[in-house]
Amino acid sequence: MAQDLFDYPKMVETALRNVVREALARTQRDGLRGAHHFYLTFRTGAPGVAIPDHLVIKYPEEMTIVLQHQFWGLEVRDQDFLVTLSFENRPEQLTIPFSAIASFADPSVSFALQFDVSAAVPRDTPALPTTMPAPQHVEPAEIPRPAA
Amino acid sequence: MAQDLFDYPKMVETALRNVVREALARTQRDGLRGAHHFYLTFRTGAPGVAIPDHLVIKYPEEMTIVLQHQFWGLEVRDQDFLVTLSFENRPEQLTIPFSAIASFADPSVSFALQFDVSAAVPRDTPALPTTMPAPQHVEPAEIPRPAA
Repeated sequence: MAQDLFDYPKMVETALRNVVREALARTQRDGLRGAHHFYLTFRTGAPGVAIPDHLVIKYPEEMTIVLQHQFWGLEVRDQDFLVTLSFENRPEQLTIPFSAIASFADPSVSFALQFDVSAAVPRDTPALPTTMPAPQHVEPAEIPRPAA
Repeated sequence: MAQDLFDYPKMVETALRNVVREALARTQRDGLRGAHHFYLTFRTGAPGVAIPDHLVIKYPEEMTIVLQHQFWGLEVRDQDFLVTLSFENRPEQLTIPFSAIASFADPSVSFALQFDVSAAVPRDTPALPTTMPAPQHVEPAEIPRPAA
């Protein structure tokens, strides 16, 4: 097979990370409507991640957060987002680049994107729920036919 | 299952159409490097499509074009692209909105995106090659782990 000078997998990955960004941006604007909520797993050691030291120690590899009932100050920027969550009753602000996200799931509609296979078997217990659903992959073939 | 107020399938579809747009934009800028070439199937009756009448008559549903050796004047715009191809030795300019694209393939690296299941079984003979490969779906799970 010829060399992939376009690097299509990277192009697709970037495009799908933008889906996560758009979902968060809409949430910043409108709040979480309906039953929507997000499970976000990110690599705690990735460039640009800014979280409290005690969380890095507890989750040296990956960490899963939930945006559902208790989150504040969601701010979506070009390359990352900021959100404040409560850990043992203390509010902590996290800064997470989109490039650090290993998986994104919205269990309300069984939607998930996975960017890193290792995310399916994190070495650490997720920070919040232990019931994270198995990632479901979106296949372009399943996209409904657009209205003509 | 709850109502999908985000319309994730639409978000993913839009994101993946942007992959096609980016591949064409890079081609406009750099030409087709290496062995890359494109098979593009589009719905001839979709809004914004501008092609000669005789092509509409010949391909009332869908049409597949190849961008490989003989194409000219590729111009990628926000919502569509223009390209001139030769049909029976006559140059004809086509204007194709990205929203009209049913499938995109780069056989050199076995990459394909499909936006409409009906594209897999076009009712008309493709305009150019009859050897269009079966579309292969890109699964996010296959994306290699990004460098940390």
